Amino acid sequence: MSLKMSKDEVSVLFDELFPQIKGEFTVEELGENSITMRMNIGEKHLRPGGTVSGPSMFALADVSVYAMILAMIGPKALSVTTNCSLDFMRKPVAHADLIAKGQLLKLGRVLAVGDVLLYSEGMDKPVARATMTYSIPPKA
Amino acid sequence: MSLKMSKDEVSVLFDELFPQIKGEFTVEELGENSITMRMNIGEKHLRPGGTVSGPSMFALADVSVYAMILAMIGPKALSVTTNCSLDFMRKPVAHADLIAKGQLLKLGRVLAVGDVLLYSEGMDKPVARATMTYSIPPKA
Amino acid sequence: MSLKMSKDEVSVLFDELFPQIKGEFTVEELGENSITMRMNIGEKHLRPGGTVSGPSMFALADVSVYAMILAMIGPKALSVTTNCSLDFMRKPVAHADLIAKGQLLKLGRVLAVGDVLLYSEGMDKPVARATMTYSIPPKA
Amino acid sequence: MSLKMSKDEVSVLFDELFPQIKGEFTVEELGENSITMRMNIGEKHLRPGGTVSGPSMFALADVSVYAMILAMIGPKALSVTTNCSLDFMRKPVAHADLIAKGQLLKLGRVLAVGDVLLYSEGMDKPVARATMTYSIPPKA
Repeated sequence: MSLKMSKDEVSVLFDELFPQIKGEFTVEELGENSITMRMNIGEKHLRPGGTVSGPSMFALADVSVYAMILAMIGPKALSVTTNCSLDFMRKPVAHADLIAKGQLLKLGRVLAVGDVLLYSEGMDKPVARATMTYSIPPKA
Repeated sequence: MSLKMSKDEVSVLFDELFPQIKGEFTVEELGENSITMRMNIGEKHLRPGGTVSGPSMFALADVSVYAMILAMIGPKALSVTTNCSLDFMRKPVAHADLIAKGQLLKLGRVLAVGDVLLYSEGMDKPVARATMTYSIPPKA
Repeated sequence: MSLKMSKDEVSVLFDELFPQIKGEFTVEELGENSITMRMNIGEKHLRPGGTVSGPSMFALADVSVYAMILAMIGPKALSVTTNCSLDFMRKPVAHADLIAKGQLLKLGRVLAVGDVLLYSEGMDKPVARATMTYSIPPKA
Repeated sequence: MSLKMSKDEVSVLFDELFPQIKGEFTVEELGENSITMRMNIGEKHLRPGGTVSGPSMFALADVSVYAMILAMIGPKALSVTTNCSLDFMRKPVAHADLIAKGQLLKLGRVLAVGDVLLYSEGMDKPVARATMTYSIPPKA
């Protein structure tokens, strides 16, 4: 199964679908069942001490898996998150961007599952890991 | 074990600790190991169609459990989220506030675990459920 | 939506479907979207010190949610577990049965989600909590 | 940080600690923060159709992470599972052994987190993924 959308096509579609988060995320690499996504950290993502908030890390994991599914199945059927598990393992570096490395572990007829490791840019060990499950609606 | 902080004291402390989210959450009821928390939904919490975003639901579950722990152990040691599992079960009602009903299932020496059901105001069935684990640092 | 199967019908079907675990579980109460299930603890469920093993607790949570779904939709379509989150909160009492209190939070067309609290018989506070997601296959 | 126990030492200790599961698991490879563990599938791990049961997959993920922690910190402090998330993605092959590929993502002072992918032997894609969190007790 090959990619149905390029990195640029995914980015353009994202901005259309989710205008509220325009500019927050950059697809850096996109492969079959894999992605590298940058979260451009700004003031609104931070908590006291300059650390990235939990909801921001959730958002990065969520869009990373969503983008992988979109790239594989195309924009016809918009999938929805049904389940997520997240482990917060280390404190993110203050004011550094977050980098997500994701892989799509399953792309079934009705469910897709992706794993993501989140890193503070320039840090070796992951700050968090996440698994997201998406439900893929039947095609019209 | 009784409450170390009242509803109002928790609210005041929240505004001090997390100025970025001031006004977004209201503690409606606070008991021993239980809470009702309102998320005052505004434009920034929404996705196209007026539905509440995933990161917003994560944030509500997270602050609900945090507030229960704070109320039980007091403000001395600030705990951090280590794990979260979330199930998104129904689409939130457009433009309605979210109401979280939480219970603290465990408050140990180093770990606390809380369960939360999230409802769109006026809706019978939960839109999501979450479990959050917090690590409680040793007292100085 | 009312129950399609009684407590006894569920029990009989379980023994047919899963002969390997015959006698290990007893449905004590079955309501609409709720269940009380006993795990009859024997030597094979134990770890050193007489405590119940993790896989046994997983099994109890899993069959509890499965039984609730079966009771609601009947035996035509056999659902499969797709996701589980488990928090182990307290050490089970040595050699005591485990009692699961479950509720079905969602019963959709393709996904069902159930929450379970597990107790050592005679103990007030739960030893574990679990959420199980089941995928419901399309009817033939 | 180097390994405190070899593959053989971990295996011997496992048989002592958990006599109930002696012979079910084989450590095939053990590295710093990584492991390959085989589950020697027998009748008791199966469900109708010859597929491996959910509790067996849980057990394999659990012992894989436990063994990685043991190898890194040694046998002095015995850690306990506090949280687990599991995604069941494909049906295991009937009567084939399961192979777990695990990595330790965090080994902190009080918490350790490991990720595991489970494969039916000879199958390319994982049948399940799991994350386990362990609590490490303070040294005596």
